[in-house]
Amino acid sequence: MEHSPLSLAQSLLRCPSVTPEEGGALAFIEGVLKEAGFEVHRPVFSEPGTPDVENLYARYGKGEPYLLFAGHTDVVPPGDAARWTYDPFGGEIHGGELYGRGAVDMKGGIACMMAAALEFIRSNPDFKGSIGFLITGDEEGPAVNGTVKLLEWAKGRGERFDHCILGEPTNPNQLGDMIKIGRRGSLTGRIVVEGKQGHVAYPHLADNPIPGMMRLLDGLLKEPLDRGTDHFDASNLEVTTIDVGNPAANVIPAEVKATFNIRFNDLWTPHSLEAEIERRLREAAGNTVRYTLTMEPTNAVAFLTPPNAFVGFIADAIKTETGSQPKLSTTGGTSDARFIVKDCPVVEFGLVGQTMHQVDERVAVADLDRLATIYRKVLDAYFAA
Amino acid sequence: MEHSPLSLAQSLLRCPSVTPEEGGALAFIEGVLKEAGFEVHRPVFSEPGTPDVENLYARYGKGEPYLLFAGHTDVVPPGDAARWTYDPFGGEIHGGELYGRGAVDMKGGIACMMAAALEFIRSNPDFKGSIGFLITGDEEGPAVNGTVKLLEWAKGRGERFDHCILGEPTNPNQLGDMIKIGRRGSLTGRIVVEGKQGHVAYPHLADNPIPGMMRLLDGLLKEPLDRGTDHFDASNLEVTTIDVGNPAANVIPAEVKATFNIRFNDLWTPHSLEAEIERRLREAAGNTVRYTLTMEPTNAVAFLTPPNAFVGFIADAIKTETGSQPKLSTTGGTSDARFIVKDCPVVEFGLVGQTMHQVDERVAVADLDRLATIYRKVLDAYFAA
Repeated sequence: MEHSPLSLAQSLLRCPSVTPEEGGALAFIEGVLKEAGFEVHRPVFSEPGTPDVENLYARYGKGEPYLLFAGHTDVVPPGDAARWTYDPFGGEIHGGELYGRGAVDMKGGIACMMAAALEFIRSNPDFKGSIGFLITGDEEGPAVNGTVKLLEWAKGRGERFDHCILGEPTNPNQLGDMIKIGRRGSLTGRIVVEGKQGHVAYPHLADNPIPGMMRLLDGLLKEPLDRGTDHFDASNLEVTTIDVGNPAANVIPAEVKATFNIRFNDLWTPHSLEAEIERRLREAAGNTVRYTLTMEPTNAVAFLTPPNAFVGFIADAIKTETGSQPKLSTTGGTSDARFIVKDCPVVEFGLVGQTMHQVDERVAVADLDRLATIYRKVLDAYFAA
Repeated sequence: MEHSPLSLAQSLLRCPSVTPEEGGALAFIEGVLKEAGFEVHRPVFSEPGTPDVENLYARYGKGEPYLLFAGHTDVVPPGDAARWTYDPFGGEIHGGELYGRGAVDMKGGIACMMAAALEFIRSNPDFKGSIGFLITGDEEGPAVNGTVKLLEWAKGRGERFDHCILGEPTNPNQLGDMIKIGRRGSLTGRIVVEGKQGHVAYPHLADNPIPGMMRLLDGLLKEPLDRGTDHFDASNLEVTTIDVGNPAANVIPAEVKATFNIRFNDLWTPHSLEAEIERRLREAAGNTVRYTLTMEPTNAVAFLTPPNAFVGFIADAIKTETGSQPKLSTTGGTSDARFIVKDCPVVEFGLVGQTMHQVDERVAVADLDRLATIYRKVLDAYFAA
């Protein structure tokens, strides 16, 4: 049975797999891949305090090299369905666009990966190498019972990957705009400055912590962390909240809290960045500001897949199919790529992200065909090399 | 019947007049003053949204000059009575100290005023002039149905005062430390800086309002408002709260709010100070920070009763009785004096404030006698002049 990217995408969109629900999406993928000769596993992971989550791992072939497609079938909630022009789980096509929650993030991408893999296998049944799918149902949720555990599980079975394509929607405007070859890391810190409460009429008997906090934050913000690197923008620090919660305008408060988040490039590790933050705060505080700094543990380190032959296969396929030379980017938020990169080089390329997480999320039907063709050309080049 | 300052204070302390309750305190004063020949009125004031409050106005004599004693019988709640060593409404004496809520703030002060006035009248039944009492039950509460309305009511009856003594506890440590000859004004402002919400990974698509707020607050704080005047400390600005309330460390917030309060001296009116605040914010904001400033209406203007003969009577009486030369101060919070000063010069002098609003509020019995003697000497000097 032949599967078009569109028919696969429609079938997936009709599964109400709002995170953490499986919604039939993984079962559908399992059926299609099994029929094509994949060995398919459906591990369920659990953790106290989080919902159990279903996942899928599939492999075709036993040889090397092993190219892994990664993604997720869970979607964010559609919100008020009445605000959608078409049923968010209807898989309807209007004006050449397929509507539905997950159309670009990322059931559409998974449909293209599947269509490309199935076609490649049909054309090259005895190719030397392996093609795999690592699909989680916990990317939009707490991300506890998903990719991290699925990778551990696969490692425990002796699986080793050579390269990975993650199908997140990487293109800002047009298919072919952008490949993600890395991601910045993320580090969050919380500062508390302590003072002494008192009446505003007697400031000499109190110690207002707010000017001290302003000095600390100014110390964090006044110099850039770096100027960026070959493949990364400059690291960026944002103060995301400051809170005192003092309703009385005649009272000097005892304490003020602030939180900041840094998106950092490959010049830093969480450890070296934390040391720099501590240095800046120490310098700004001098002997006068009493504060505590708490850094949140992070698994979001900065990583880069250097532009090599693998990235070249993808860029070339994009150029051939779309005429665009894709930008090799490391911008944007974190993704599951940060977990996969510990096992093999990973590159992200998928659909156009403009409507992701929004009402009327949708994808051009033509983009589905073109993305499937791009993935197919990557497979051709990868296994011919 | 003779009334000692101690017996009057005990009677008043035994009235549970937690604001806005009258608790029998004004009725007791009415009885004592009527017996001594005062004409006594008990106006009750009301205002939608606030409790009705009883007040007392009493006058002895019809001539001039007219010296007014002002004060309040309402007290702040005792809190957990179990934490008190002695019943907060028991009027008990232990170790030479009289315990109870209001002992110094300011039933003790009222008792001394009454004892002094009664003794003066007994000794000088035909003195030329008038002595009055303006006692509110709404100083510790919203202060809506108290002194302001009582002054209006008295004015409506044609009452005109020459001088006023307000019996608030003005002494930080020892009876005789300090006379208050003025008070700073109080002005509160609220700033909102607006930005644009967004994801921390895409700061160029967002506009973090926090750095803008830091610039505005720095603009308010970096230069002193003034250096103080002959009788006043420098005006002082405290930022009392900053609040964003953003729980998500990966989100740049849309808005940040801050509140500040200024205690200002006689170089400023609320109007001129507001203009200065606006100027500083405009300069700090430049063209980049979008903000709104809202100043709260204030009736707390700075005022000064210049050290004249009236102040001299009080300072001399204190010096004679205690041996201390009292400091002529304008420090501390606001008081009802700010309302009375619109009608006549007002000076504040009362007991020692150390235990006010605290558990085990108390006054030395000896201080009651000495304060009554001081008030009596003031009456002697005032009406002899």
